[in-house]
Amino acid sequence: MTERAATEQDVRAVAARSREAAAELAPLGRAAKDAALHAMADALVAATDAVLAANAKDVANGRDTGIGESLIDRLALDADRVAAMAQGLRDVAALPDPVGEVLRGYTQPNGLQIRQLRVPFGVVAIIYEARPNVTVDAAGLALKSGNAALLRGSGSAYESNSVLVDVLAAAAEKAGLPRDSVLLVPGTDRASVGHLLKARGLVDLIIPRGGAGLINYVVQNATVPVIETGVGNVHVYVDAAADLEVAERIVVNSKTSRVSVCNSAETLLVHAAIADEFLPRITGALQSAGVVLHGDDAFAALDGVLPATDEDWEREYLSLDMAARVVADVDEAIAHIRRWSSGHTEAIVTRDLDVAQRFVARVDSAAVMVNASTRFTDGGEFGFGAEIGISTQKMHARGPMGLAELTSTKWVVTGAGHTR
Amino acid sequence: MTERAATEQDVRAVAARSREAAAELAPLGRAAKDAALHAMADALVAATDAVLAANAKDVANGRDTGIGESLIDRLALDADRVAAMAQGLRDVAALPDPVGEVLRGYTQPNGLQIRQLRVPFGVVAIIYEARPNVTVDAAGLALKSGNAALLRGSGSAYESNSVLVDVLAAAAEKAGLPRDSVLLVPGTDRASVGHLLKARGLVDLIIPRGGAGLINYVVQNATVPVIETGVGNVHVYVDAAADLEVAERIVVNSKTSRVSVCNSAETLLVHAAIADEFLPRITGALQSAGVVLHGDDAFAALDGVLPATDEDWEREYLSLDMAARVVADVDEAIAHIRRWSSGHTEAIVTRDLDVAQRFVARVDSAAVMVNASTRFTDGGEFGFGAEIGISTQKMHARGPMGLAELTSTKWVVTGAGHTR
Repeated sequence: MTERAATEQDVRAVAARSREAAAELAPLGRAAKDAALHAMADALVAATDAVLAANAKDVANGRDTGIGESLIDRLALDADRVAAMAQGLRDVAALPDPVGEVLRGYTQPNGLQIRQLRVPFGVVAIIYEARPNVTVDAAGLALKSGNAALLRGSGSAYESNSVLVDVLAAAAEKAGLPRDSVLLVPGTDRASVGHLLKARGLVDLIIPRGGAGLINYVVQNATVPVIETGVGNVHVYVDAAADLEVAERIVVNSKTSRVSVCNSAETLLVHAAIADEFLPRITGALQSAGVVLHGDDAFAALDGVLPATDEDWEREYLSLDMAARVVADVDEAIAHIRRWSSGHTEAIVTRDLDVAQRFVARVDSAAVMVNASTRFTDGGEFGFGAEIGISTQKMHARGPMGLAELTSTKWVVTGAGHTR
Repeated sequence: MTERAATEQDVRAVAARSREAAAELAPLGRAAKDAALHAMADALVAATDAVLAANAKDVANGRDTGIGESLIDRLALDADRVAAMAQGLRDVAALPDPVGEVLRGYTQPNGLQIRQLRVPFGVVAIIYEARPNVTVDAAGLALKSGNAALLRGSGSAYESNSVLVDVLAAAAEKAGLPRDSVLLVPGTDRASVGHLLKARGLVDLIIPRGGAGLINYVVQNATVPVIETGVGNVHVYVDAAADLEVAERIVVNSKTSRVSVCNSAETLLVHAAIADEFLPRITGALQSAGVVLHGDDAFAALDGVLPATDEDWEREYLSLDMAARVVADVDEAIAHIRRWSSGHTEAIVTRDLDVAQRFVARVDSAAVMVNASTRFTDGGEFGFGAEIGISTQKMHARGPMGLAELTSTKWVVTGAGHTR
């Protein structure tokens, strides 16, 4: 892969085009946007050969530079994957339009009519890694919510993304939308990301999707508002009053059903009162599923459990590893979570309502599960129909982000010559 | 005024105390918070002498260093102003508690119960200028919404703020809340503000209240999430289909009812079709009210109107000055606003529904007024009961910010052993 440099001027010029497109997109009604999404889906399927040819170049470049087979797997497309991306656009078209929803509306005693409406953000920039499907997903979600999409994928998917954006932009234009509704940020070097992060006034929102390193870089350097996504150091606490069969099922599912995703569990906390019975049972169940436990003294006394360090409490493994600790009570579990959690998702397993309520009220995370797997923190599982990411910050959006989270609001106040 | 320096360690240590207090505040119910607010109000009145003595020192220091009489006026307290601050706390106690409100709640087909609740942010830092009343207002609003208040007032109000925070914190503690529910950031130098802006992980939200210089400094340097407030380059557009009597009333009110506030109008745009009739009329009315117009060629042809430059279109005067321009139609008005507005408030005066709808849909500002004065963009006028500021950004909160805007959300998902 050759790194393409882009100057601040290059990046700002493209962002300014996005901003012009956003002004045209904002007042559009649902029918125009849905028609464009269907046109984009059709164009994508029709361009399958061109997309796959570009993708083959990226894959060859990736192999040449040794990016590793798991990255190649994320990067590589085939006709089925292209068809799935097109179907994703049609699915987004089928969702309700969030724009124009009246969130609050009332008439003041003086007769002023006050309404708070959902409106598009404007220009939404998404920074992501080597998954070309995100190019299409993000463009579709941004457009449906009335935003211009300014996309910054990984350099290792540059050829694929260039063709995909060309196809989507041309189809949008043919359907009557601005061609610049979907744009790729120029450059594949880190400096060009830096220019994007500073484009305040041109870009309204940046959503980084990727590992902790990328997200931290964005947060440290952006002057454009950012929504942090996706880092999940997720805990399951098994209370003294848990149904142990339910607890075993939830812990195993939370850890093992898909280890590479942010809502999978990384740390198990167990109430001391049930340790004698539950520790051998859950250790056996997890080890049978291939999990390597990193435990405190109580857990480490069991066969095959490695001793845990602070690094284990802090870490998002994204692998078949799990940290494990015995706590004195729910308050020690809450304190452990406050100390180490990334604020994504935590679960409690208990039949005690007071304990459940205490846990829910005092755990400060985007999602708190009561007697359910942590894997349910997901836009699909929440019924959103689509998801742009999972926010782990408290501002604007927290938890799974659907179309509504890609909107801002506007107050419209109607009077009859009212003055103050 | 002596500048007090504070190291990064000093600032982080205080922020960490706020964070501990926030954990205790989050689960509190309304009764506990309201009782504390009333106790704080009583304590404030009882401490009037001490507050006024400290304030007298600030005022004397201010006069010594020549900060100017308008700043002295904002800084100076008397017994009535202290009583008004106490009453403000009681008014906040009377408002509904936003915490715990269920924003969305439903049961999925698999039986999972999903609820999205309002929760406190945690630690809310407010950076403001030399108005000691903001110390009390901000503390009250933060506490009512379950947040710890971390306050950073101007160095010129340091003595007043220190006593006020001591009084409020002691009263909160006596009422059973953490003493650190209200804390002052140490230091009065700009470097200590810088440390606060970087305290990500300790501080959840920063709200700067002040001039464009302060807000820009905060936005450029913060890694903590920020809500921008208050800069208002506000426009009134008088359409060809306006009732000219209504238009005159709204323009004069928007400009002159209080010139120093962010929702006062700074630029007048007039449709060309009514220029011959309306320009002399509105120019006379504004000049009678003491306004100096800075106009385009059409306006500048009238007596006493100065020629406008780009600086006039850009500027938030906060004075009895107003920029004025004739536009060809509503679209030119919209384009002018998109080019120059700070996104706070714009108004249209028209009887034409299509034109009004076009203006509302295409103007991208926090508030759009139809046949009403721009001065209505205000938490009190919107019926919020209290206001922490007016957001001019699109993320999280836009327009007047009340108690709800000082909250985040949390998803609580309740199952019966659900796994994926």
